[in-house]
Amino acid sequence: MIISLPRRAVLSAALGVAGTHLLASSPAFAITPSVPHQPGIATPQQPFLYFIAFDLTAEKRQDVAALMRRWSMAADALMAGRPVPGFVDPQDAEGLSAKGLTLTFGFGPGLFLKDGKDRYNLAARRPAPLADLPRFNGDQLVPAHTGGDLCIQSCAGDPQTAFHAIRVLAALAYDTATPRWAQTGFMPSFGKGKTPRNLMGFKDGTINPDIDDPKVADRVLWAAPDDLPWMQGGTYLVARIIRMALEHWDRMKVGFQEQTMGRQKQSGAPIGGHREFQPLTLKQMDKDGNPVTAQGAHARLAAPEENEGAQILRRAYAYDNGLSYVAERWPPWRQGNEFDAGLMFLAYQQDPRTGFTKIFERMSKFDMMNQFTTHVGGGLFACPGRASGDYVGQRLLEA
Amino acid sequence: MIISLPRRAVLSAALGVAGTHLLASSPAFAITPSVPHQPGIATPQQPFLYFIAFDLTAEKRQDVAALMRRWSMAADALMAGRPVPGFVDPQDAEGLSAKGLTLTFGFGPGLFLKDGKDRYNLAARRPAPLADLPRFNGDQLVPAHTGGDLCIQSCAGDPQTAFHAIRVLAALAYDTATPRWAQTGFMPSFGKGKTPRNLMGFKDGTINPDIDDPKVADRVLWAAPDDLPWMQGGTYLVARIIRMALEHWDRMKVGFQEQTMGRQKQSGAPIGGHREFQPLTLKQMDKDGNPVTAQGAHARLAAPEENEGAQILRRAYAYDNGLSYVAERWPPWRQGNEFDAGLMFLAYQQDPRTGFTKIFERMSKFDMMNQFTTHVGGGLFACPGRASGDYVGQRLLEA
Repeated sequence: MIISLPRRAVLSAALGVAGTHLLASSPAFAITPSVPHQPGIATPQQPFLYFIAFDLTAEKRQDVAALMRRWSMAADALMAGRPVPGFVDPQDAEGLSAKGLTLTFGFGPGLFLKDGKDRYNLAARRPAPLADLPRFNGDQLVPAHTGGDLCIQSCAGDPQTAFHAIRVLAALAYDTATPRWAQTGFMPSFGKGKTPRNLMGFKDGTINPDIDDPKVADRVLWAAPDDLPWMQGGTYLVARIIRMALEHWDRMKVGFQEQTMGRQKQSGAPIGGHREFQPLTLKQMDKDGNPVTAQGAHARLAAPEENEGAQILRRAYAYDNGLSYVAERWPPWRQGNEFDAGLMFLAYQQDPRTGFTKIFERMSKFDMMNQFTTHVGGGLFACPGRASGDYVGQRLLEA
Repeated sequence: MIISLPRRAVLSAALGVAGTHLLASSPAFAITPSVPHQPGIATPQQPFLYFIAFDLTAEKRQDVAALMRRWSMAADALMAGRPVPGFVDPQDAEGLSAKGLTLTFGFGPGLFLKDGKDRYNLAARRPAPLADLPRFNGDQLVPAHTGGDLCIQSCAGDPQTAFHAIRVLAALAYDTATPRWAQTGFMPSFGKGKTPRNLMGFKDGTINPDIDDPKVADRVLWAAPDDLPWMQGGTYLVARIIRMALEHWDRMKVGFQEQTMGRQKQSGAPIGGHREFQPLTLKQMDKDGNPVTAQGAHARLAAPEENEGAQILRRAYAYDNGLSYVAERWPPWRQGNEFDAGLMFLAYQQDPRTGFTKIFERMSKFDMMNQFTTHVGGGLFACPGRASGDYVGQRLLEA
């Protein structure tokens, strides 16, 4: 039975990222080892992402465990800028140093049950929050870019570092897991304390919960005390590849874009407001008796006030996959290549059922933004904590 | 008749990039207006690229001219960080400032002759160096990622800025040109004066000609004095999407990689040498009488000494398109997703016939590197100079 766990410990030694810190555990109450969180969740967001999902091809649980051990050791080395043991091509000190690298591992539903089979005798240890997501209104998830038994989120200060780590880890998975889908992303910083902008030109993440407050983080982000023991110190990741119809968006007047978003483009302030971080104008009416912030505005539908307090930690990136062919089914029946770009939405939360699903069920039906966005892929993953000396998932795979 | 032209003038006013400068024209001899070069060629390479090729759908030459005028004016504004006239979504001062943006325009063979038709009555003005490239040994060019009547190279300090400019320019092309293919890229800087490394982990661009020397630039880079008048101050771009079999490369021992490259991985020095910029060891033999640098080594085959002095200016980027499905035709008949990544090779030169083609004809047959690389797309473009007050291509399209 878990009585008390330190919530905010991080792999600071492996990280080398400014702003990380390690809180002491509470010795009077802790009866399990301290369970630090994985990096790349509560740690500051880096500008570049390589996200990859794998299908497991291993037949035995011990092979999965061996992979997670190899990956964890390699990740520790990569994040510290050290050569990876057993990897023939040692990391180059000058060219591929750690650059704020974080590697975050997750387990998808397929680890516990795949095509009706409990391959690794783990079905009984599937945590309740890892319930399959419902099909949402408008979902057009492409199977080739959806799901996965394992995932790795690699974030760093440059794209080459993030990709290099994935190359090393993918090589270590040979004959155990095979790449299923991947998505790169970027989210340039606009300076400390400034909210980055996504490809729609609006600030992205203004209402993120204040996870520097341990009470908020414990309520919103980290697995609940009554979640399974192996998930303590962990969290759940919902990933969605959200394509944006940028050509259409770019032709809309800024005023219409702002009504759709429920915020002002330049300042990020609510409609009718003046400061980015002031409360939304959800109840204000204009002189004609219409709501200042439209009923279908994105910011309204995402707001905790409209979702019985539901919150998630967004850690999203812009993505840009070049062009892809589109044949419109409406006038003027335009055919041709359009930008295959949008948002690689990554959101961490204590329980997707009361987090992402709670919020997105209404959003998927009523958000004015849906005219410009389509969810085309993604996945759901449990990202456990990692006790000191353990590899990621050790208490799941060896218990 | 062109007697003398300044070679190294650049659009410094529009650029705002450190290290650019504007040489005065030679008033005693110049009988045409000063023809500055386009930015993004001889100017310092930025870390991020968005490259896009368009097919022209315009029926009349004047529509092409109007597009080039719109593009040129918008490019001037974007590069200066000013709002784009006539574009509904003004550039955001905080989020999307110029950040070293350069926009470089090129004309493909299809502007002059497409499917046997001289659509715009321009065939007679096609410059000889814009002759179609031959099919090279091993070419596997995918039509959907090859060719194009127009191209834009957008380079900047972050990917969002580079992409934003392309979005604006693509919107201005509506009903005149349609996107054909695009490729993003990155090439993180390792510090001033240090050669960047590509995804193979080797330094990329060590033997680039010293174009700070005007004599070298005039001989290697800029269109010859006897090229067509509208190409004065211009250059020719060969773009090749070169996919790397990274999974295979990563499994090779470093010694074999170095033999293949003809250089040492860490230092970039020639095989048997000690410094990156010392001459290659092309004639040295080992004690068994074998060449120290293998006959098929990449660096040997690329060297001017082995190509009758032929040189090109490489301005290449790493690219990373995530995963794509591969089914091997050899044991162990591996099938699955592999990294769709490699090099977005961009090379500028005075004449592709004596530049890229001269070098690559032998390379495509004998380079040991070909075991790990495949050319899967690209294009050939004439990038004219731009006289002060002109739009890009004005002397071609209005003469």
